[in-house]
Amino acid sequence: MNMYDIIEKKRDFHKLSKEEIEYVVNGYVDGSIPDYQVAAFLMAVFLNKFDIDETFYLTDAFIDSGHTIDLSEIKGIKVDKHSTGGVGDKTTLVLGPMVAACGVPFVKMSGRGLGHTGGTLDKLESIKGFDFEISIEEFIKNANEIGMVIASQTGDVTPADKKFYALRDTTATVDNLSLISSSIMSKKLATGADGIVLDVKVGSGAFMKNIEDAEELSHLMIKLGEKYNRETMAVISNMEQPLGLAVGNSLEVIEAIETLRGNGPEDLVELCYRIGTKLLLIAKVAKTDEEAHKMLEETISSGSALEKLKEVVVEQKGDVRYIDDYTLFPISKNVHEIKAKESGYIKSLNALAIGKISQSLGAGRETMETELDLGAGVLLNKKIDDYVEKGELIATLYTNKEDVNEAIEHFYEIVEIGEKNPVPQKIVLKEID
Amino acid sequence: MNMYDIIEKKRDFHKLSKEEIEYVVNGYVDGSIPDYQVAAFLMAVFLNKFDIDETFYLTDAFIDSGHTIDLSEIKGIKVDKHSTGGVGDKTTLVLGPMVAACGVPFVKMSGRGLGHTGGTLDKLESIKGFDFEISIEEFIKNANEIGMVIASQTGDVTPADKKFYALRDTTATVDNLSLISSSIMSKKLATGADGIVLDVKVGSGAFMKNIEDAEELSHLMIKLGEKYNRETMAVISNMEQPLGLAVGNSLEVIEAIETLRGNGPEDLVELCYRIGTKLLLIAKVAKTDEEAHKMLEETISSGSALEKLKEVVVEQKGDVRYIDDYTLFPISKNVHEIKAKESGYIKSLNALAIGKISQSLGAGRETMETELDLGAGVLLNKKIDDYVEKGELIATLYTNKEDVNEAIEHFYEIVEIGEKNPVPQKIVLKEID
Repeated sequence: MNMYDIIEKKRDFHKLSKEEIEYVVNGYVDGSIPDYQVAAFLMAVFLNKFDIDETFYLTDAFIDSGHTIDLSEIKGIKVDKHSTGGVGDKTTLVLGPMVAACGVPFVKMSGRGLGHTGGTLDKLESIKGFDFEISIEEFIKNANEIGMVIASQTGDVTPADKKFYALRDTTATVDNLSLISSSIMSKKLATGADGIVLDVKVGSGAFMKNIEDAEELSHLMIKLGEKYNRETMAVISNMEQPLGLAVGNSLEVIEAIETLRGNGPEDLVELCYRIGTKLLLIAKVAKTDEEAHKMLEETISSGSALEKLKEVVVEQKGDVRYIDDYTLFPISKNVHEIKAKESGYIKSLNALAIGKISQSLGAGRETMETELDLGAGVLLNKKIDDYVEKGELIATLYTNKEDVNEAIEHFYEIVEIGEKNPVPQKIVLKEID
Repeated sequence: MNMYDIIEKKRDFHKLSKEEIEYVVNGYVDGSIPDYQVAAFLMAVFLNKFDIDETFYLTDAFIDSGHTIDLSEIKGIKVDKHSTGGVGDKTTLVLGPMVAACGVPFVKMSGRGLGHTGGTLDKLESIKGFDFEISIEEFIKNANEIGMVIASQTGDVTPADKKFYALRDTTATVDNLSLISSSIMSKKLATGADGIVLDVKVGSGAFMKNIEDAEELSHLMIKLGEKYNRETMAVISNMEQPLGLAVGNSLEVIEAIETLRGNGPEDLVELCYRIGTKLLLIAKVAKTDEEAHKMLEETISSGSALEKLKEVVVEQKGDVRYIDDYTLFPISKNVHEIKAKESGYIKSLNALAIGKISQSLGAGRETMETELDLGAGVLLNKKIDDYVEKGELIATLYTNKEDVNEAIEHFYEIVEIGEKNPVPQKIVLKEID
């Protein structure tokens, strides 16, 4: 077997065998295959596609490249959810406590963010002391004792995916359904929840720009999950505008806590209920959508979800006073208000653009070395389809930077005001069980 | 401008601008663009294709990456021919002297061979002393004085092509019409003959496996030539079986000399006449095919072509006694005869397989460091459509290696004997003026 022949085979639209795909993955990881050959291979895969079997083989090879984490000592049916990434996405922080408060272990290994948005770990770091660097023993203990745990992914899990992703990122070979799903699912499958709900974002602020691709990606990831006997479902959700009102690390955590208090923005609340319902069904603690929905509602009305979050914060060494006193959160000192230049309905609030504005304010990383400004970001006062009077507040920008004229100008450019949109925004576009 | 966007653009089937293609070529040569990005780019080009404009731009950028050689001091219309490469192809050694003997300057910069066959320079090295490392001044002087010169290509010509070719060679991105024609024509155009005849090989022993691709490649190269005001024509010739009877360096040079003596194998003779005719028409020393053909014939019957070869050998410091005394040539000491195992017609003699057998005997390089055995190779006694009696000689293998059982076995495997083929072999499949 040699790399040239494998590249040629995929170039010529042939199907690769399990052994060939393993050869590529192992050879790239051990350094025997140079990156330029893997780059040519990835472009051939991007353009000529992998079928479902090849996608399985790649996922397998990614998983086999590192350690897998055995969570069988955690009692009950453990669940996890994964979002393909969007702007203002603090779903995990709301959903985790709700689900855990229903008695379902919610176990999540997460990463830091690169690009326009911080990752879940970055967001939680705005709570002083919060510690993700926990051992697998602590992870299991926390899951059993309080039902929820969020830790950083260890370097030993799917190292091949990490190396492939870095190469894809510089060779324009990211947006391929097989490559995306192998990358996401190998990590999920190696870190072992029994059931997974995928939140596949679609729209301006997401990888997937149209619902057809999002559906195909969902089906593919569900097949991968089922191949490994993990019950897997997907929700395709709208990422044309940011989720909720807050974009930025502290701002999003505060919004998540408010949501647990019952004061969440409509779209975020609905998305949490829809994903949460699936998680409860997978965990078999509810039999119907209605039953699950009711259980989730009770975690809010009774305050049990908020209590669960506090338990997690305490357990993971965070300062629990933050949950009741938002003034403790870092909030950047320079505040700029964006006000409507005319009256009318908000027609669009491009999620990607707002993510990039938030990044430029300090909330997102340019490179892995960038120090985040946890108090920076954008707080929306209006969303698409809302009516604004001329001069009314649309958004507030927070930053510690001095010169943000460009960000402000850019924000004015992307806010479109005019007639009411004929079709209202929906947050959940499709559910796939 | 940045490389990521350019890769993405070609990946998404868009047309690249002249500036973008220059950016890629210059960036790769100066080291600012890493090879893995160029590899992904090449695969995108391979699969999504370049159009004619992009092929021009690439050719331009290759030419501009190095020196060009000005041959305007050579009097008359200078011609050159280029073969896309085949097995047993000694056409240049026959054609050059014939054309030069007609008063047309035949100027060739050539290379060494990598793969199953030696290059023209390798072949001529079997004549002791023959020197290709000549200065441009000598090149011009020789062309003016004796009308023919063969030199090695200098490192300064199209260095970008050299770097791109090496990467294509390891990433399965060689066989693309735009990439092949830019590579061939940039070298030809930078080294300056006024007219070029391309010998585009098609068949088992050639890059091009079918005549449609060969035609498309021919048209593309002709367009490139004309863009630079070089009259360019093409002959598409058959490479199902080796050209002539000899494969291997000394063996081929001896066959070429015999052909100049009027004793050449039919296919080689016909191909030389067809290409030679075009060269004389381009050089305007003949007005019709018939006139050109007659002039070429006279160079053989009068011995003037053979005399011309001797002049070249003398001028380039080779030992001219070789031309009249073949025993001076290195011929490998171990000789193995391949005899027919049954009576019948030869149905096939796969050119690539014979090339590889010849290489394994020592006639071709495995890597650029391999020392060639100039006396090794295969001498055919029969060609496709010839009748053989059981036990009759089909071919003789020459080598200095001790263990060649595998080569012998392989040769028996590829000789197919049976009924006469319904359609006889033709050497020239198509001419494109």
